[in-house]
Amino acid sequence: MHLAIVQTDPAFGEPAANVREALSLMEGTIADLFVLPELFNTGYNFTDPKEAALLAEPPTGPTFQALSGFAKKRNCFVVYGFAEKADVPFNAAALVGPQGLVGLYRKVHLYHKETTLFAPGDLGFPVFPLPFGNVGMMVCFDWLFPESARSLALRGADLIAHPSNLVMPHCPDAMVTRCLENRVFSATANRIGTEDRGGLSLSFIGKSEIVTPRGEILCRLGEREPGIAVREVDLMLSRRKSINEWNDLFRDRKPAQYERD
Amino acid sequence: MHLAIVQTDPAFGEPAANVREALSLMEGTIADLFVLPELFNTGYNFTDPKEAALLAEPPTGPTFQALSGFAKKRNCFVVYGFAEKADVPFNAAALVGPQGLVGLYRKVHLYHKETTLFAPGDLGFPVFPLPFGNVGMMVCFDWLFPESARSLALRGADLIAHPSNLVMPHCPDAMVTRCLENRVFSATANRIGTEDRGGLSLSFIGKSEIVTPRGEILCRLGEREPGIAVREVDLMLSRRKSINEWNDLFRDRKPAQYERD
Repeated sequence: MHLAIVQTDPAFGEPAANVREALSLMEGTIADLFVLPELFNTGYNFTDPKEAALLAEPPTGPTFQALSGFAKKRNCFVVYGFAEKADVPFNAAALVGPQGLVGLYRKVHLYHKETTLFAPGDLGFPVFPLPFGNVGMMVCFDWLFPESARSLALRGADLIAHPSNLVMPHCPDAMVTRCLENRVFSATANRIGTEDRGGLSLSFIGKSEIVTPRGEILCRLGEREPGIAVREVDLMLSRRKSINEWNDLFRDRKPAQYERD
Repeated sequence: MHLAIVQTDPAFGEPAANVREALSLMEGTIADLFVLPELFNTGYNFTDPKEAALLAEPPTGPTFQALSGFAKKRNCFVVYGFAEKADVPFNAAALVGPQGLVGLYRKVHLYHKETTLFAPGDLGFPVFPLPFGNVGMMVCFDWLFPESARSLALRGADLIAHPSNLVMPHCPDAMVTRCLENRVFSATANRIGTEDRGGLSLSFIGKSEIVTPRGEILCRLGEREPGIAVREVDLMLSRRKSINEWNDLFRDRKPAQYERD
């Protein structure tokens, strides 16, 4: 299958323009699955809960309409991050395909001021079977909690689609560890640019990347430019958890020896 | 406290000489805790279970006598890997101090042919309070299972002492992820050299290192030379799991959302 990561530079509070910009990056690329950044339609740096609530959309809102239209026209799938409307909104990611909405993930580990804007995710780490393999989602800061990727892998994910708005420097290298320890693919789609709002300036680090179960970085975009990268990958490689004649990374786990939560 | 990592080049099957070599590296260094490699006294590449059983020692055997003698004389602590005598031996690590044996760890995740030589560890991931902080142990391949370091951190480890005989390339960089995600220190003591025995040639990658809870590599030794490095660290820094005003990496965990074992 062909896997694409899309790195954008959204303008805060301009969802229609941001969706257009993303689609224009995607139009020229043939892929089976496109992964877009976290909150790619709204921007990130909400000053207060009212702003987040105002820009939140239901899972079948205008952003969904535009991206599921693309998915239908192109017979492909798209993962994207958006603010999901609710009494307290969720920092969510949607997986859409030719038939519409396939699944939803709500960010479990909220970062920084997000804790004052969003409710923590309550859907666990679901995994969705697609024609080319099983896809699960995690969002940005989830990377720092090994339980996120582990939960997805234990539920059978072959690929972790990882919409992000990274500001800290460590994630791109740490995703190599996440892929190695779980023998899965990852596709981190990050944004670039700076948002200076309400006295808080945040700069996003780009470096969107695709990593294999062997820890190879297949591609990594730059730190300052929007862009798109596509790679052909065989997601079935993630089904093989053995790394030599004696070790299978999943059979070798020893839950009885681990500290329980 | 002063933390030392000792990188050795043991000769297979020569425990007395290997202990002497290690002590001669340690003699010139003042430290509160020294960490030595996995199976540092015996070498690694056992051809069959009989060889492993023959070179195994009880926890109070000659290797213990030598290192606890050093610990008493120097009023310090030492972590080292050795084959622990049992019906089927364990690939173990011992923590010794001025008063003798403090604690034992038995490697939970056995690598490669070790699975035919040793019994898997049955002590979980214990943590031991020392005057300068809480120390837990894991051995080599345990690094690839995020549950190892997580278990130690959840049990209160400030420092992960990590005797190793690494042959794969990824661990030194992955330990940065382990320290970041758990906000702990790590001290990986690896060996160098090649052991070509029974048709299996193994080369060990060196790169022993000390990493901080912020993911800084304080020191990393070379790939080809024995050596020792010592750094002054404040293990209490690992008690602070908050990374900003809103996030505490341990309080932010959401076990109810994780896939259970």
